[in-house]
Amino acid sequence: MDAAAAAAAARAEPLLGGSPPTPRALLSPRARLLALLATSLTVLLSLAAFRAPSAAAAATLPSLLPPPLLDQRLDEEGWPIIDRPTDRPRACWGIVSAGRIAHDFTAAAVGMGACVHAVAAAQLPAARARAAAFAAAFRLPRAYDSYAALAADPNVSMVYVAAVNVAHARLARFFLLHGKHVLLEKPATLTLGAFDELAAIARARRLLLVTNFWTRWFPTMRWARAIVHSGMIGRVVHVAGDMAFQAVRHHDGALDRFFNASLLGGATLDMGSYLCMYASTFLDASLEVEDYALDNWSVQAEGVVEGGVDTETAFLIGHVGGAHAAMGTSLKRASDFAVRVMGTHGMVHILGVAISPLAAEVTVYADASLRTESPRPCCGMPLVSTTSFKSVLPPYPAWTGESEQYPHAMGMVYVAAAFEECMYDPDCTELPELPLEEQRLLVQLAWKVLDRVGVYKGVQGV
Amino acid sequence: MDAAAAAAAARAEPLLGGSPPTPRALLSPRARLLALLATSLTVLLSLAAFRAPSAAAAATLPSLLPPPLLDQRLDEEGWPIIDRPTDRPRACWGIVSAGRIAHDFTAAAVGMGACVHAVAAAQLPAARARAAAFAAAFRLPRAYDSYAALAADPNVSMVYVAAVNVAHARLARFFLLHGKHVLLEKPATLTLGAFDELAAIARARRLLLVTNFWTRWFPTMRWARAIVHSGMIGRVVHVAGDMAFQAVRHHDGALDRFFNASLLGGATLDMGSYLCMYASTFLDASLEVEDYALDNWSVQAEGVVEGGVDTETAFLIGHVGGAHAAMGTSLKRASDFAVRVMGTHGMVHILGVAISPLAAEVTVYADASLRTESPRPCCGMPLVSTTSFKSVLPPYPAWTGESEQYPHAMGMVYVAAAFEECMYDPDCTELPELPLEEQRLLVQLAWKVLDRVGVYKGVQGV
Repeated sequence: MDAAAAAAAARAEPLLGGSPPTPRALLSPRARLLALLATSLTVLLSLAAFRAPSAAAAATLPSLLPPPLLDQRLDEEGWPIIDRPTDRPRACWGIVSAGRIAHDFTAAAVGMGACVHAVAAAQLPAARARAAAFAAAFRLPRAYDSYAALAADPNVSMVYVAAVNVAHARLARFFLLHGKHVLLEKPATLTLGAFDELAAIARARRLLLVTNFWTRWFPTMRWARAIVHSGMIGRVVHVAGDMAFQAVRHHDGALDRFFNASLLGGATLDMGSYLCMYASTFLDASLEVEDYALDNWSVQAEGVVEGGVDTETAFLIGHVGGAHAAMGTSLKRASDFAVRVMGTHGMVHILGVAISPLAAEVTVYADASLRTESPRPCCGMPLVSTTSFKSVLPPYPAWTGESEQYPHAMGMVYVAAAFEECMYDPDCTELPELPLEEQRLLVQLAWKVLDRVGVYKGVQGV
Repeated sequence: MDAAAAAAAARAEPLLGGSPPTPRALLSPRARLLALLATSLTVLLSLAAFRAPSAAAAATLPSLLPPPLLDQRLDEEGWPIIDRPTDRPRACWGIVSAGRIAHDFTAAAVGMGACVHAVAAAQLPAARARAAAFAAAFRLPRAYDSYAALAADPNVSMVYVAAVNVAHARLARFFLLHGKHVLLEKPATLTLGAFDELAAIARARRLLLVTNFWTRWFPTMRWARAIVHSGMIGRVVHVAGDMAFQAVRHHDGALDRFFNASLLGGATLDMGSYLCMYASTFLDASLEVEDYALDNWSVQAEGVVEGGVDTETAFLIGHVGGAHAAMGTSLKRASDFAVRVMGTHGMVHILGVAISPLAAEVTVYADASLRTESPRPCCGMPLVSTTSFKSVLPPYPAWTGESEQYPHAMGMVYVAAAFEECMYDPDCTELPELPLEEQRLLVQLAWKVLDRVGVYKGVQGV
């Protein structure tokens, strides 16, 4: 075992012997403070890169003040810092499914030192073998044969449900009823009623229910939201985004899940739901009260349906506040996976891959009323400043011998850390970055798009 | 008079004494051939910048062959080369209106050596003085007091109608009936019936009727169309575009035309019509037969209406071939004015300002079936090649003491040259870049968007 492998093993080792706290959990308050200060300084320096506007501009452009600092708690390698209580047994993740996204989530959670105690798969023999191989690769202590066995394990406090789309709601309900906090892959549910039932169970039992829109917890996304909420780009009036790629129709000889209607495939339920998330993130960003009632949103869509799934879809989402999103998604073409958030005074450009964005940039224009030259009829807003943000992911745990399945998937450490921290906090009942009401709206928006495209009629009941 | 001014005056001088041919019109066939070869070589070198794909990729990717060469006929300064017949009186432009866009068109036409023989304005005294000042600035021989006087001038063969939006159709009809070829600012007409009437007159009298979507004739646009038609990016399935800026609501103390419903203001009739043009340019680009029947197109839109005009609009345009466009336009926010044309195998990015684009780039991806590694679930198409195009505008005629009102407005030389050349050619009855049927579709698309937004109800009759 070479030095790197030994270090990696040391990172993983504590998980094998039960649930001892990792070195990270034992970080002293002073070390944590230092890490926080270091991160804050980085953000501060990034914001200082804004060129100061002229005195006249500054007088009339209070929106150019730097946005609030991010309290991003990352250590020097980019791993989230978690306050884990030392006075009770350590909470562990249970992973449901051994698929691609579960693979990436587990790599991120194990890498960050979380306790990943068990993996479960459906009761099929092949799935069982796959789960065992999965557990071996990530050195997980157990690979349960059944969901019931996982649910019965008192060491498992949090369950990540990453099974096939059609099983999401059923499994989430099952584990909530067994007292587990649930991080649930999207699409959360097929119907609004099913989502409401899950939310009611979670609320009644004070359990977390979080749809895994992991993008939301990325430092880049938090930076973009802070910029927008600071008013720096003015009122948001348009969001444009595109996510598409050429999927392979047949994979391992079978119809790929993307094209398989019985597995709830299609561009919208996959990439389109991220675009809906971007719409809800930014379209009401300037309103004083967040309002997730669908009555305040409108949805129009165009799409191509083949074999029961939508393969090319474009959609508009409108907000009663007067802002709109124009989005495109497809399984059959190229895209730059970028999202642009356009305000009255500037633009935030979330650079691709906007599902898991590592970089963004903001451009701020001077107010039209500041223009002293003859008003130009078009495109003539003078640029005030531009700056960018770039985050670096923690390293992939190479000792697994595996590799990422999704781009920048190690970024799932951010949602995993936020979830775990909230779970330890008795006052935290929902993750503030994605409240239950917004998750409910996201179920509605995605299914409205599908309804407008004319696919999955009868499946959904929103 | 310094040397530069003298040279500039020499360029303008021939126009003052009537209609002698300019030096450009006297270019020998050999000089023209040399200029054509030089331009072709530039395009060829640009295309050679494509990195050759691997042998395996090339075998299965015939679409990566370079697109057809552009036969862009520009001289060494970037001015279009026009074959003007020498055996009959030289055709002159008449300019109707002395507004901003007329200003830019005249600068381009005078700069390129066209005969701009007259300017006319509405019969108001203030308008007359403005027309006289306009004619003086550009050294035009006459500033008519009435449209009738312009229409009666036998030296004027072509009329550029750039009056306020509401007067477009009426003036176009008037000048067509007086035997003039008409280049008409958009929006061409308020109703489909009015457009059909204009088209019928033009066809019956063998006159040109061209809506001034000047973008269409830009070298960048011609390059992009050649790329797309060559199949290099595969089948086009999505076009995304955004054009918006923060307009000044009151200009010179009065409600600016952008916000004035009685002047047919609003974001869609201004910038949105360019986005409709981009949709019709590329959405059916891969179809064998161009089909401009509205039945083959669908329009959805969301917008904010204030004071009777749309100030923020997002819209979708779908083509029966299965391709879609998602567009945004606004009078109240920033934008990068870029358009992206996304195909199954790559993307053409028309860089801002896409109304008058000087640059574009194309990225080509390998076919998904060529991927030899484990199929990644997302975003994993290997890049094959990328290259870009950049054109340089001819210089603004500095001797006018004026400056451009619209960005890259000297690019109107391209439409002016194409129009004039077609007019000289007895076999040319429509400009091939924008046939009458497509102009008709563009009237329909823009008004469909407005109809969906719910503005100008009762005004339009499409």
